[in-house]
This record gives sequence, structure tokens and C-alpha cells, in this order.
Amino acid sequence: MSDSPSANLDRIDLLQCLTSDARAAIARQCSWRHFHPHEQIVDRSSDSRDVCLIVEGRVRVVNYSLSGREITFDDIESGGYLGELSAIDGGSRSASIVALTDTLVAFMSPRLFLETVTNNPTVAAIVMRRLAQIVRTSTGRIMDLSTLGANNRVHAELLRLAKAGLKPDGRSAEITPVPIHSDIASRVSTTRETVARVMSDLARDNIVIRQGNSLIIPDFGRLEEMVEEVRGD
Amino acid sequence: MSDSPSANLDRIDLLQCLTSDARAAIARQCSWRHFHPHEQIVDRSSDSRDVCLIVEGRVRVVNYSLSGREITFDDIESGGYLGELSAIDGGSRSASIVALTDTLVAFMSPRLFLETVTNNPTVAAIVMRRLAQIVRTSTGRIMDLSTLGANNRVHAELLRLAKAGLKPDGRSAEITPVPIHSDIASRVSTTRETVARVMSDLARDNIVIRQGNSLIIPDFGRLEEMVEEVRGD
Repeated sequence: MSDSPSANLDRIDLLQCLTSDARAAIARQCSWRHFHPHEQIVDRSSDSRDVCLIVEGRVRVVNYSLSGREITFDDIESGGYLGELSAIDGGSRSASIVALTDTLVAFMSPRLFLETVTNNPTVAAIVMRRLAQIVRTSTGRIMDLSTLGANNRVHAELLRLAKAGLKPDGRSAEITPVPIHSDIASRVSTTRETVARVMSDLARDNIVIRQGNSLIIPDFGRLEEMVEEVRGD
Repeated sequence: MSDSPSANLDRIDLLQCLTSDARAAIARQCSWRHFHPHEQIVDRSSDSRDVCLIVEGRVRVVNYSLSGREITFDDIESGGYLGELSAIDGGSRSASIVALTDTLVAFMSPRLFLETVTNNPTVAAIVMRRLAQIVRTSTGRIMDLSTLGANNRVHAELLRLAKAGLKPDGRSAEITPVPIHSDIASRVSTTRETVARVMSDLARDNIVIRQGNSLIIPDFGRLEEMVEEVRGD
């Protein structure tokens, strides 16, 4: 077990409902490991079935096409967990997990995970709600991929980022840091070149304005309308 | 409650682990309703949060684009259930549900569903495994939509159907009935015209042969290779 002062599971959302003694007992049964940025935490082709508890850092769930194109599924912050599918159904990994920052992971065996879920209906409810959330996000992405062009998907992703950075007045938004084009491309399944073109069009129309390390959306409603018009939300 | 002789929940997979008394008690608390083919069982925009137990018949999970294009997510046979997302997280419906055949549905309230899940870890495990399966299918579809052209997605869907109709020798496969072009189009997010063109190309190359009400795939391995080549499985 790591000797880092925060090497406990007290901030893992999934385990919040347990007593701190129960969390400490789980912590002792986990295997702990540090990862550097860009280091692979779980290889899609590996046989591991462990659930990954993200104690510190930030990680990305990704898959690669045959040609090497990266398709991003999710970013998970410290306090979250992932890799539960294989623990639940015993199946192979559905994606790879890569560290985005310095990351401390506690690996929980499938046996320990299932035991914890079975003995604690509140933990089971959290696992179900999280899976439901993944299904909803996936359904939205399948709809976007099936019905929107790449341009509109970039607008939709920008809207998603802007929502998180909406100012109190509800009129403008600030995205910090400026999103990396290849990250957007990987999230909406298009090329970096397409993202660059769409962003430059948006900048020309003053829908986005670059300001230092931030991207300002002066009229959030306008971007929202552009997306609603094609998505029909 | 319906007076149909099969109007009980004994064949619902989710509830197999309960005693028949417990199933009967749940059956009495459900609201029961018959649906005709093409009739809508759940409207995406409805406020209902009930879980649908499919006692008889077959149903389809669908969404529609702004232009009216139908995107199919899943077909559920009798014995299955669906609509659990809203019961689990209290959120809105993620899709509509339409009857494909004459269908008998038992609607289970979110309260009753959550109570059953909380009191029966085996039921909770089935719900988690089913959600995990939906996430895996969605991940595969997102990868296909992100990295394959429409032609290759039609090949992949045909392969999926052929796998279910693989002959004992493992060399050839039979798909019965002949799949409807618009059904394939809706499952792989393309147009009916594209499916018709791809199917006619495959027929010309003797990869599929129409025989009465069936589609014969004389060389399953060849179709499998065509898909693997682009998907990298």
C-alpha cells in the first residue's frame, strides 16, 4: 500500500456510505499503484477484471480504431471509479484506461467488489445509477453520430463544455483551459483538422473568442440554438 | 390484471430467483396492458418511470432524429424487461418503446422495482449485468459509427445476424426470415437505399444467397474476414 498521506478510500464516492472502518478494510485488500501522465492503467487486451478506484489524479477511457484513431469515452476525476463492467459480468475489457495526470489507483478485485455490492444495497444503487448514466451518455452519442454531421457534433461538444463554465448571469460562458482540438476530435469521432476548421469558423463569427488560456462564449444562447436546431432537443 | 392464462411473471428472467409467491405478489401490484403491433408502449417524452416486463410478444427500443429517421437500439423478447433507466435514476425516458407483435406488458412502478432490487441481491446482480451488456453493445456501436463506413456497418450487422443462425458445421449460416432493409438501416444508422445497394453487391458476389424466406451465407468465414479486416477484432 502506498505511503501517500491520502492513500485511503475516504474520498471515493462509491464507498461514502460505508463506515470508515469498512473503507479501511477494503483499502488493505486493494493493490495500490501510481501512474505517470500518458501511462496505461488498463490495457484493453489484458485479462485483469479489477475495478479501478481513482484516489488521486484524472484518467481517460479510450479505444483505438485499426488505423490508430483514438475514440474517447469518458474522463474520470479523483473520487470516481471505473472498470466495473468486467467485474460485473466477467467479460473482457471494453476499453483501455490511460492516466491524464499523476494518478494513484487502488485496484479492487472482482470478488471484493461484488461482495461489497451484495452486502450494501446503497453501494449497489450507486453502481446502477452510474451504469444508467453511462447508458444515457452512450445513447446520446449514438444519436449524435447517427444523425449529426461532424460540424454539428463539434458544436454540441463545445456546448457541453460551455454548460460547465456558464457564468452566473446565464448569458456567457468560459471554458478553461482552451480545449485541445485533438481531445474534441476524439470525443466526437472526427479528425483534428475538422475541429480546427469548425473552431476557426466559430471564431470568425464571434461565437467563440480566445482570451489567454480561456475560450469565451459571449452568447451562450446562440450556441445552444445552433445545436438545438439540428438535434431537436 | 389480464385474464390471459400466461398473465403471470413466471417467465420473466429478472424475477426467476424469487419464489413463485413473491412473483405473484409483484404481479398483483403491476398494471397490465395489451398492445398491438406498431403501438407505442412508452413515449420518449412521457413522464412515466415504470419498468416494462415483457410477458408476451416482442418490442423495439427506438429513437427518432429531427428529420424523422428511426434509430433502433434493441429488440426485447418475451421474458425480458426494459425501461429500467428512469426507475433507477429518476431521469426522463432515453428512448421510446414500440410493440413489434401482439404484446402483453406488466408495468412495475419505480418504487416496487427499487424495493425488489434492494431486497434481493440476485435481482440487483441481474440488473447490473444487463446494464453492463447495454454499455458493451453501445461502446461497440460507437466504435463502429466512429471508425467504419456505412457499407462495413451493414456487413457487421449481417455478421451479427448470421452468428445467431450459424449451422452446426460452423461453415455456413441461415438468417430467417430475410432481414428487412429498413430494419438493418435503422440498426446501423444508414439509409434503406445504402442497405439495398450493399445487399445487392453481396448477392452478386455470392456472399449472401436468397432462398425462399431465408438468407443463406454459404461461407460464414468469408463474411467474418470482411468485417474483421476493417474492425480489427
